[in-house]
Amino acid sequence: MKLVDMTVTEYLNILESDAPAPGGGSVSALSSTQACDLVSMVCGLTIGREKYAEYEEVCKEVQKEVKALGEELYAGIDKDTDAFNKVAAAYKMPKDTDELKAARSAAIRAANVGATQVPYDTVRLSLEGLRAMKKMAGQFNQNAASDFGVAALSFLTGARGAWLNVKINLPGVKDEALQAQFAKAEDMVAEAEALAKELYEGVRDSL
Amino acid sequence: MKLVDMTVTEYLNILESDAPAPGGGSVSALSSTQACDLVSMVCGLTIGREKYAEYEEVCKEVQKEVKALGEELYAGIDKDTDAFNKVAAAYKMPKDTDELKAARSAAIRAANVGATQVPYDTVRLSLEGLRAMKKMAGQFNQNAASDFGVAALSFLTGARGAWLNVKINLPGVKDEALQAQFAKAEDMVAEAEALAKELYEGVRDSL
Repeated sequence: MKLVDMTVTEYLNILESDAPAPGGGSVSALSSTQACDLVSMVCGLTIGREKYAEYEEVCKEVQKEVKALGEELYAGIDKDTDAFNKVAAAYKMPKDTDELKAARSAAIRAANVGATQVPYDTVRLSLEGLRAMKKMAGQFNQNAASDFGVAALSFLTGARGAWLNVKINLPGVKDEALQAQFAKAEDMVAEAEALAKELYEGVRDSL
Repeated sequence: MKLVDMTVTEYLNILESDAPAPGGGSVSALSSTQACDLVSMVCGLTIGREKYAEYEEVCKEVQKEVKALGEELYAGIDKDTDAFNKVAAAYKMPKDTDELKAARSAAIRAANVGATQVPYDTVRLSLEGLRAMKKMAGQFNQNAASDFGVAALSFLTGARGAWLNVKINLPGVKDEALQAQFAKAEDMVAEAEALAKELYEGVRDSL
């Protein structure tokens, strides 16, 4: 059963259980999905109100962006758990002969690439979400200021949390070129941290 | 319908909608609930394994603590939305006579106290969660290191996000003694930030 089809309670119960997945990777993707939804809500509470007419254009543009990002991040919630389960399945492959050993090693490597790609994408999409937020900073219905701030925090947790998942899976990727590609997430996290700090503190100090 | 009884997809759809609640308050409570569940999972992946026998005692203690904190935070997911809806309902009360006006003002104040108490409790419980994590830092199954790190990040988003919700509701509380009490959350957030930074960076730099 897909995580997103479970009730929130069922999802939390399986998260708490000793099953290693879902774990921090799915939580990171869910964190940034919620961030997209909060930004979309803040835009929705601004668009179409005479008082905020001057913010209408930027809010429409950002809402469109975060809806698209949110769809990808939403898919990542289950993708991360599926990718982890593939790694676990590969480790359980037989290793009785040299041929089986080689097949098992190849499967483990391929599964590790998948389990690194998913959180790498979460880092990338979370950073894009924060860049979109930056465009509309201060230009929205101020009754929703706390929601805007929580969105920035949630994108940050999504980016940093996914970065930990990239790091833990990176050694299993083996391929040096791919490892170098995935390691670029570190710079994305640094940019996400700077943006989230600015956006969060902007809201906090306005209240 | 309670948020926790919805599917994850339904919850995300209502979060994204123009309904002001659920919003950042429920997201903050859910963030820290997930943090409790991740810590509990990390403990579960450590307890009962010969290799980690020396960590067994501290993991059992912390697991018990985060399970209790998690129950309160889980209740906060719906409590926050309910509290917001009470504020909105109070504002819709009639104000045709002086008596009705007075009753409406009293209802608004009472509802604002409720809407501040819930995120205040989320800040407090999130800090307790981080204090519990600190006890077991480095003393768990290292295969779950990223999950431990994501837990610290999620508690931080819960604490900071709830603090924004305390701040936005604080002016409506009116009562100065209560306002001073709720404002104590600021120091709790500062402690949570220091703890989360230490725990997150500890994991990040170990990977």
